[in-house]
Amino acid sequence: MTTATSFIRERAAAARAASRRLANLSTKAKNDALLRIASLLESEQEPLLAANAKDLEAAREAGLDAYFIERLTLTPDRLRGIASDTRAVAALPDPVGEVFDSRTLPNGLLIGRRRVPLGVVACIYESRPNVTIDIAALALKSGNASILRGGKEARHSNAALGEVIRRALEGSEVPAEAVQVVADPDRAHVEDLLKAHDLIDVIVPRGGPQLIEHVRMNATMPVIAHGDAVVQIYVDEFADVEKTVTVVDNAKTRRYSICNAVDTLLVHAAIAPAFLDALRNCWGTKITLIGDDRALALLSPSGDVPVERATEETWKTEHLALRVGVRIVDSMDEAIEHIECYGSHHSDAILTESYTNAMRFVDEVDSACVYVNASTQFTDGAQFGLGAEVGISTQKMHARGPMGLREMTSYKWTIFGNGQVRPL
Amino acid sequence: MTTATSFIRERAAAARAASRRLANLSTKAKNDALLRIASLLESEQEPLLAANAKDLEAAREAGLDAYFIERLTLTPDRLRGIASDTRAVAALPDPVGEVFDSRTLPNGLLIGRRRVPLGVVACIYESRPNVTIDIAALALKSGNASILRGGKEARHSNAALGEVIRRALEGSEVPAEAVQVVADPDRAHVEDLLKAHDLIDVIVPRGGPQLIEHVRMNATMPVIAHGDAVVQIYVDEFADVEKTVTVVDNAKTRRYSICNAVDTLLVHAAIAPAFLDALRNCWGTKITLIGDDRALALLSPSGDVPVERATEETWKTEHLALRVGVRIVDSMDEAIEHIECYGSHHSDAILTESYTNAMRFVDEVDSACVYVNASTQFTDGAQFGLGAEVGISTQKMHARGPMGLREMTSYKWTIFGNGQVRPL
Repeated sequence: MTTATSFIRERAAAARAASRRLANLSTKAKNDALLRIASLLESEQEPLLAANAKDLEAAREAGLDAYFIERLTLTPDRLRGIASDTRAVAALPDPVGEVFDSRTLPNGLLIGRRRVPLGVVACIYESRPNVTIDIAALALKSGNASILRGGKEARHSNAALGEVIRRALEGSEVPAEAVQVVADPDRAHVEDLLKAHDLIDVIVPRGGPQLIEHVRMNATMPVIAHGDAVVQIYVDEFADVEKTVTVVDNAKTRRYSICNAVDTLLVHAAIAPAFLDALRNCWGTKITLIGDDRALALLSPSGDVPVERATEETWKTEHLALRVGVRIVDSMDEAIEHIECYGSHHSDAILTESYTNAMRFVDEVDSACVYVNASTQFTDGAQFGLGAEVGISTQKMHARGPMGLREMTSYKWTIFGNGQVRPL
Repeated sequence: MTTATSFIRERAAAARAASRRLANLSTKAKNDALLRIASLLESEQEPLLAANAKDLEAAREAGLDAYFIERLTLTPDRLRGIASDTRAVAALPDPVGEVFDSRTLPNGLLIGRRRVPLGVVACIYESRPNVTIDIAALALKSGNASILRGGKEARHSNAALGEVIRRALEGSEVPAEAVQVVADPDRAHVEDLLKAHDLIDVIVPRGGPQLIEHVRMNATMPVIAHGDAVVQIYVDEFADVEKTVTVVDNAKTRRYSICNAVDTLLVHAAIAPAFLDALRNCWGTKITLIGDDRALALLSPSGDVPVERATEETWKTEHLALRVGVRIVDSMDEAIEHIECYGSHHSDAILTESYTNAMRFVDEVDSACVYVNASTQFTDGAQFGLGAEVGISTQKMHARGPMGLREMTSYKWTIFGNGQVRPL
């Protein structure tokens, strides 16, 4: 335990020291380092794939499911894709150094806010090796040192990726200690990370609700939680049925296993018969509809649609599966109340042709991303024009929604004077 | 204990419900409520002063010091001052509703970030009744419900102020539950607040290091800590001695008991004899200088200046008294290293005529407020042009430095479409 503690604290202290140098490096120096990482990802495929093979073998032996293994897998194509994403981060504008709210005060002080890196960003994330490079690249570009703690099932892959990053940085102006990959799966490392608020500026947990909750309850530094995503679409009485089915279909089936996939349909009673009929025609037997009594009554004539009866638990569930909750509501008030009560304030949408209802929904629904007549699957840093993202934040502090490069920064007030003193 | 728990959770739930209504109130409705509070503060002086008298009597009996009692005291003048501050908050621009980063994406989606209140802001603060009104006013103006937990020594004053606020709001469009003054000094209330992350969006502790640390370690929601302020001034070898003494004098003696008062002078060896001589002439016996060996050697010829020998603890101390640490350094590197090692990253200054040194200091010192040739006592929301402040944040997330109205907000992404779906 003592050894583990000093291990993480040593790593974090090294990251902190590196972060001070990294904070003032030029954009060119940071981009050069990113391009070196991208090149090594392509030229060092062999050891990376060999390490990944060990993880895949262990995952298969442990009986992990196909979806899990799919996310864990590296291939030559995927490595090229990750390298290409890294080059894309290098091509993004550097957020550091921007000065905003700058002005001269009546006493002559020239004051402004200068964008600076957060410092040291720790991330605890799922067993997906590509995330290791994604977050290292975003942190580096935004001038932050990073401590990366991926899932234990990816440990060999992460160790090999960490080695590639280290070698790439050793030939660059970025200190090699600026990216700390903690591949060792010792659980104590996580606890040690959570305690090190003197060395780590922010911790970003990505993963299931238990991880998020554990970090939220135990972290001693600020947390930006990416988790929970019960996504709702309200089909208003004034919705266009055809448009609505297209959007709902995309929101569920484009990819059903990602956080911005819709979980609950709140359907106005006046449009429910027509809408559910059209939805059934679109989906056939592909999606299980988990309906309240009124929805089931409307769906029952068709024997072949897979249906289940909804419970209170249904509305709180992020399905990540070919399943969707359906609740009939009698008013927009009821829909908004449902969203407030059961949602995750991640991404919620209204589908309507009513201007007044659209604007009211946007005013009153307090979610990270509030949509009118568009698929919730757009919630994504790249789709929003941020270039890339560390994750989707559902908290209100600092970063809300996609967390891109700018959200990886803070600012410092700079005040240039000429001997000014404050009057009594 | 059970009763106390449900008491705070009830209050927080009421605040949460009120926050939803408050979030969409017009600026006029919020300003009207603020003006009503201001009027009642003036017309209800008698019960407010009577309640304050009880607190003052208890404080005197408890042997609390003059400085503490001074801050606890309300007078007719002070009440008029607080009313006037409240009117000033009403006159500030409303941050809510601003839309930024708005643009049309290539697919036709109109996307932007709309500024919204944080929701429910809890504040735990010292025994200063004026703070109750200050924070209630700032929260209300920025559309946030607030839960206000002042020091127990101000409980009668706070209860009376809470009553004034409640009566003012009852005649307004702002729900009376939007401001919850928890005057009851039961310690369990604090613990209950820290646990209620489902009802409270952010908690702001103001006060001594123990309170800050306790909140940081135990809060389950985001924390914006206002505390620790070891403030440093580096007197560079190229400083103008006369200007420097004027600025240092202001930074210490304008008010020595506030967070932005200087605690440590880092003096370049080359200028130390001239600077310390001039400082001694300015301060005489007023300020105790706590010097390292080299500083003491320079100060010793003058028998009447009160001096003490510095220890490691000196550099970590926020004096809040007529005392200042003095350390001689041989380079700016040494000064910056000292600031990084011992400072609070609150407010730090360089005094120099060297352009290069000034710019390097601003680049490399990572504090909330970094000054060149100006008094650190400017660190203040009103002085920075923010109108007013909840406190000075020394963390990097969300709000850094003075936390004004804008820092009391978050944003939501709004996405207006016409049936767009995300391609595979």
